[in-house]
Amino acid sequence: MENTIAYLREKREGHLDWIKDLCRIPSISTQTEHKADIRAALEWTRDLCARHGFQARIHETGGHPLLYAEWCQAPDAPTCLVYGHADVQPAGDLNLWDADPFDPVVKDDWLICRGAADNKGPLLAHVRAAVAWLATAKRLPVNLKFLIEAEEEVASPNLGPFIEKNKDLLSCDYILISDTGMYADGWPTITYGTRGICYKEIRLSGPEHDVHSGSFGGSIANPANELAKIIASLHDDEARITIPGFYDQVADPSPEERELMAALEFDEQEYVAELGSPAPYGEAGYSSYERRSCRPTLDVNGIYGGYMAEGASTIVPARAGAKISMRLVPNQTAADIDRLFVQTIRQRCPKTVRLEILDHGACDPYMAPLDAEPMQAARRALTEAFDQDVAFIREGGSLPILPMFKRALRADSVLLSLASPSCNAHGPNEKVRLPDLDRGAEAIARLLAYLGR
Amino acid sequence: MENTIAYLREKREGHLDWIKDLCRIPSISTQTEHKADIRAALEWTRDLCARHGFQARIHETGGHPLLYAEWCQAPDAPTCLVYGHADVQPAGDLNLWDADPFDPVVKDDWLICRGAADNKGPLLAHVRAAVAWLATAKRLPVNLKFLIEAEEEVASPNLGPFIEKNKDLLSCDYILISDTGMYADGWPTITYGTRGICYKEIRLSGPEHDVHSGSFGGSIANPANELAKIIASLHDDEARITIPGFYDQVADPSPEERELMAALEFDEQEYVAELGSPAPYGEAGYSSYERRSCRPTLDVNGIYGGYMAEGASTIVPARAGAKISMRLVPNQTAADIDRLFVQTIRQRCPKTVRLEILDHGACDPYMAPLDAEPMQAARRALTEAFDQDVAFIREGGSLPILPMFKRALRADSVLLSLASPSCNAHGPNEKVRLPDLDRGAEAIARLLAYLGR
Repeated sequence: MENTIAYLREKREGHLDWIKDLCRIPSISTQTEHKADIRAALEWTRDLCARHGFQARIHETGGHPLLYAEWCQAPDAPTCLVYGHADVQPAGDLNLWDADPFDPVVKDDWLICRGAADNKGPLLAHVRAAVAWLATAKRLPVNLKFLIEAEEEVASPNLGPFIEKNKDLLSCDYILISDTGMYADGWPTITYGTRGICYKEIRLSGPEHDVHSGSFGGSIANPANELAKIIASLHDDEARITIPGFYDQVADPSPEERELMAALEFDEQEYVAELGSPAPYGEAGYSSYERRSCRPTLDVNGIYGGYMAEGASTIVPARAGAKISMRLVPNQTAADIDRLFVQTIRQRCPKTVRLEILDHGACDPYMAPLDAEPMQAARRALTEAFDQDVAFIREGGSLPILPMFKRALRADSVLLSLASPSCNAHGPNEKVRLPDLDRGAEAIARLLAYLGR
Repeated sequence: MENTIAYLREKREGHLDWIKDLCRIPSISTQTEHKADIRAALEWTRDLCARHGFQARIHETGGHPLLYAEWCQAPDAPTCLVYGHADVQPAGDLNLWDADPFDPVVKDDWLICRGAADNKGPLLAHVRAAVAWLATAKRLPVNLKFLIEAEEEVASPNLGPFIEKNKDLLSCDYILISDTGMYADGWPTITYGTRGICYKEIRLSGPEHDVHSGSFGGSIANPANELAKIIASLHDDEARITIPGFYDQVADPSPEERELMAALEFDEQEYVAELGSPAPYGEAGYSSYERRSCRPTLDVNGIYGGYMAEGASTIVPARAGAKISMRLVPNQTAADIDRLFVQTIRQRCPKTVRLEILDHGACDPYMAPLDAEPMQAARRALTEAFDQDVAFIREGGSLPILPMFKRALRADSVLLSLASPSCNAHGPNEKVRLPDLDRGAEAIARLLAYLGR
């Protein structure tokens, strides 16, 4: 292993050139004119893998292609699947960038360009670790597979079907992903859980058309007032969600998790001040950190009805609606919560208005077992590489690939977060801290060794 | 009086030509290119009045001019002020009209054109009655003043200031207005009350920008959810408004009023079916008719916040707001209710969001004394002219001129409604029933006699 680590340090500059080369390709999946760039980015990555001993092939899908590469010559060792993506977000307003977003710039310790943090830099940390092993030991400590898609920024429409059709090809013991954020700049981080989501829309209708609020107000139900009542009924005075059965499957954080959380020294006042909210808020009995990570939510994402422009209009609106999403935590399932939500809304909707409920997607929560071997190996590898304790965090957002991998491949994921919280992914001047990528590659090299033992 | 009535019947065709002539002038106050038409309509009316013995003069205002005409040669008789308006709404989509909206058509008993019902036909019924008296008796039974504005369809911005500056000129004992709707086709109607209004807007703000509902949901107050709670809190389970003190000044309908209401034979089921609402709704203990006329309301006229377009967006919105208007009944005042509303909203808004309250105008309720002499005289005159009992109704909408006249001139208004409920004012194929106008003119001729005695 010492040789492998030494190799990584020696090749640092050359590996940085790889990242720059890949970032120069504007593989923007949200814009059809970049179709050829998407393929170019995958071909560039395929060639890199193939050059260093991987079998690599681009697979066509219904949309953009994806890259699958493998080195599977360790029959007795476990198999790891690395997931990443080679596509990026558009640059957005070029005036907000200090330089061409596709012409990488190094400034102090930072690499600045589109894709530096999301996801090309962190993805290549895995390739660098594998290359280092192959160059120094002529073999990998584990069997290693790369699954690199190019539609992550457009919600991965073809990834699920590809995985379902290629379960044997992709079969593995562990999944490694570096596409999440670190808890703080320079603080090595493992994200071990994500929340699920159940996103619905309620629409209420009353009179056939908007009607005069003077002539008719008070004598017909107002869909906007009734909508407000339904929404208000969904939380109690302690900010708990009142849907019967909503919390039945919720697992409270274990004592071990509570210790990990305490180590984060989360500053509630600073958090609220940064967001601009006037005061902390949330479910009674939980900290702000728990509320955003380990507790389920119910938020109105949008509400509309009647006259919404400047000034005033004296109408009873014919219709009003709200987009409402619930974030879910283990062991809730999106299917259960969907059923409970619909049932509750139907019960609480008065007979004086008509109700329609729409669907805007769902995803189950995910939590990796903290005490499982790969998690402990990753902790050790990161601690050694960064010479610092690892932050263990649960992400409030949802990552559909995690429950999908678990379901299709029956494998848990280890999320090694290498992007700074200040990386500005999707925004102007996206950046990544190069020491984090270098130490990340070393940590991954160590992790492969520990998993292979 | 018999001569006067006979004169009206004899001159029926000629008077119809007057209405047609006035309706041919497209005096659309909402469109600046019709400025000259507005003046032409007033000049036409001025000349008609002057030709028949009135002193008539057009007065300039900050906007469109207005017409004042008077015959004040009965020193011992009371003085009546007729209010009306010579401006009209735009024609709207011409494809929805069966003919040119400014080329009057008579079909069966109906006159069809823009302004036929709102307000040229009913307004001229007053002129016709006066002309008939002057032609047959060479005098009027009362002193009569006409105040005819040309900005009614744009909310009368200059009428209030004109009245305030000309209180002596306009001084009167009673005000006569025919600019409201009949209770049913052919049913002579007196509108004796209108609701007031207090129109506010609540805006809540939370985080500085919309934030990710996964990363932050549950740990900061959601302005849309908090808004829903505040709105929901404003009604109890019996659809009563929960603002403390809201009902303190509300006068319940008198036994006499209840008798008048019973005579209307209001059909709740038919009413709800016509509006398209699935079921009756409203304050417990009151009928649908009472709820829309004699009871105060609180309606959301518009609600907005967060992502309101097609599909889904996973945000906690930075802001949410609602336009809320309250209709008021005697003896509530808009000023009192404004104060109570603001106080209650401030109390109920949690400290986790910021609150802003905007103002969208106010108007006091109005109710004419049912037992006063002009009301009884109008009832008798209408009953005789239509050979049918009069419907007495309270209008749910607001008419700012009524409390304004009461305040500035200390005079009550008698609203003789001559437009059918099916007249389609403001819409295509606006129409008025000619027998209603003819009988209306006869009723006004009678009313002038009764008031003069």
